[in-house]
Formats: sequence, structure tokens, C-alpha cells
Amino acid sequence: MDYEKYMKEALREAKKAQQLGEVPIGAVIVKDGQIVGRGYNRRELDNDPTAHAEMIAIREASARLDSWRLNDCDLYVTLEPCPMCAGAIIQARIDTVVYGTEDPKAGSAGTLLNILQDERFNHQTNMITGVLKEECSTILTTFFRALRQKKKEQKQDKTNG
Amino acid sequence: MDYEKYMKEALREAKKAQQLGEVPIGAVIVKDGQIVGRGYNRRELDNDPTAHAEMIAIREASARLDSWRLNDCDLYVTLEPCPMCAGAIIQARIDTVVYGTEDPKAGSAGTLLNILQDERFNHQTNMITGVLKEECSTILTTFFRALRQKKKEQKQDKTNG
Repeated sequence: MDYEKYMKEALREAKKAQQLGEVPIGAVIVKDGQIVGRGYNRRELDNDPTAHAEMIAIREASARLDSWRLNDCDLYVTLEPCPMCAGAIIQARIDTVVYGTEDPKAGSAGTLLNILQDERFNHQTNMITGVLKEECSTILTTFFRALRQKKKEQKQDKTNG
Repeated sequence: MDYEKYMKEALREAKKAQQLGEVPIGAVIVKDGQIVGRGYNRRELDNDPTAHAEMIAIREASARLDSWRLNDCDLYVTLEPCPMCAGAIIQARIDTVVYGTEDPKAGSAGTLLNILQDERFNHQTNMITGVLKEECSTILTTFFRALRQKKKEQKQDKTNG
């Protein structure tokens, strides 16, 4: 199924983030069956608070298509967008957003807010959720579990040293 | 007064946008009395839906300070932030947001939403509104009035031609 095909590509991006020690979130933008933008979270690497997967993918797609309007594009992202990314998706006039798993802490596409489908703004997207949800969720929980373990060990090292 | 001093700098940025035919919105970021980031709306010039004044100022400040955390920074912007920019402000952990005039169409710092002070997110900002409100509002209404006039003339030219 196409949704899963492109979500797998978003997961490939997430894995790039993971390998670099970044919170593993990935996104791709698809137009007419072609991937026109890719991104993974690079906040720490770039020291840029706006360097989320969706933002990077949107900027890449806009540059490639030479247009800030991405009306005929769909965005696939492993985690539900935060307010910034949901707002950028509206700004870019993305047609459909497909995401893997919900974000209970900042999700702004249905969980805490639904910026993508607020009729007071000048654009609304279609939305499909739960695609490859388990993989999208597991990559994050595994990352954070390892991070907690590492911090615990560092703390113990300090106590012992 | 300092609020007005820095809002005047944000207005200077807005005027740069105006001169380039962009919707005139400007922003500056201030840390310890120094401007560490500047930005004006460049959406059309850059063909980038994320190239709002606030986003550019945040990215510049993060690059200059070599940190995605802008905790000790204040952001001045002529127009109330949209969801994307309000979300970026939260991501960057900005301390205080000062804005000139409300945005009834997309304002997400009190008008349609208040992303800056939603306690469900992991950061909230202080907020000061209405600083040099008239200037910040007039530059926008003048711009849009001229744009409408230009479109009307172009339509008439077509009809007459």
C-alpha cells in the first residue's frame, strides 16, 4: 500500500537521525508519486530549534519545486506534528498529512490541538493517522529508553568516581 | 522606552520587506540589550513557506549564539505570530514575546489560539502586546491597500486592452 511505502521512507529518515544521536523523527514529501523532499530531525546537530524533520522536508520540496505552495503534495511523518510544523504545513498548503504515531506532549494534529483542520485558518489538510504506527512509535521509545539508561550510568559513574 | 526602541528595529526590518514587495512584517531578537537576530518576511523572494520574519530571526540568533535554546532572549515582532512562528518561539524557549498588532486571520498569541501560553506545552513565554501598534498596523494596511489598487488597475488594463 502506498501509505506504508512512503511511511517506510519517512522511517528511513528517522533512522538517520537516530544514528546521529538525534530524536528519531523523519519525514518525506510526495508529489505525483515522487519524493520531492526529505528531512530528519537535526536540532542538536544544527543548533537550530526549527530543524524538525517536517520543516527540512518542506524547505527542500519548496526549493526543488521552486514554489512555496505545495498544494499537490502530501507529507508523511513518523510522529504527529508539533505546533510549529503543523503551522508550516498550513503555510505550505500541503494537501494531505499522513503520520505514524501520536505525540501526547506536543501533538497539534488532533492530540492537543488540531492546527491542520482548524477552519479559522486559510488552509486545511486531509489527515491520515496510524500508518506503521508500531514502528514509528518503537523507534522513539527505544531511543528514549537508551537515553535514560545512558544518563543513569553517567550518574552512577559520577557517584562511584 | 526599551520596548519601543526594539519595536522600531522590528519596523525597520518590516520596511525592508515592503521595499522588496513582500508583506511587511519584521522581527528582532534581543539578548542583554543586544540585537542577536533580525528577520523580515521573505516568502516570495525565497520561495520558502517557512521564511517568516520570526523564523529567520530565530535561526540567525541560534546560529550566532551557537545554541537552539534562546532562553534569555526576547523576540519583538510587528505582527502577532502565526501558529508556525508561535510554535518555533516555544521550541526556541524564548523568554518574552513583544508584538505590535494583532492578526485576526492567523494570530496564535492570543487571537485565534494562544500557543505561547498553553500550559500543556513544555514552555510558556511572557507576552507584551500593542507596542507601537499604530505603526505596525499602518504599514500592513497601506501595503494591502496598494496591492488591491494595483490588482484593480491590472484588471482594468485587461478589460480596456
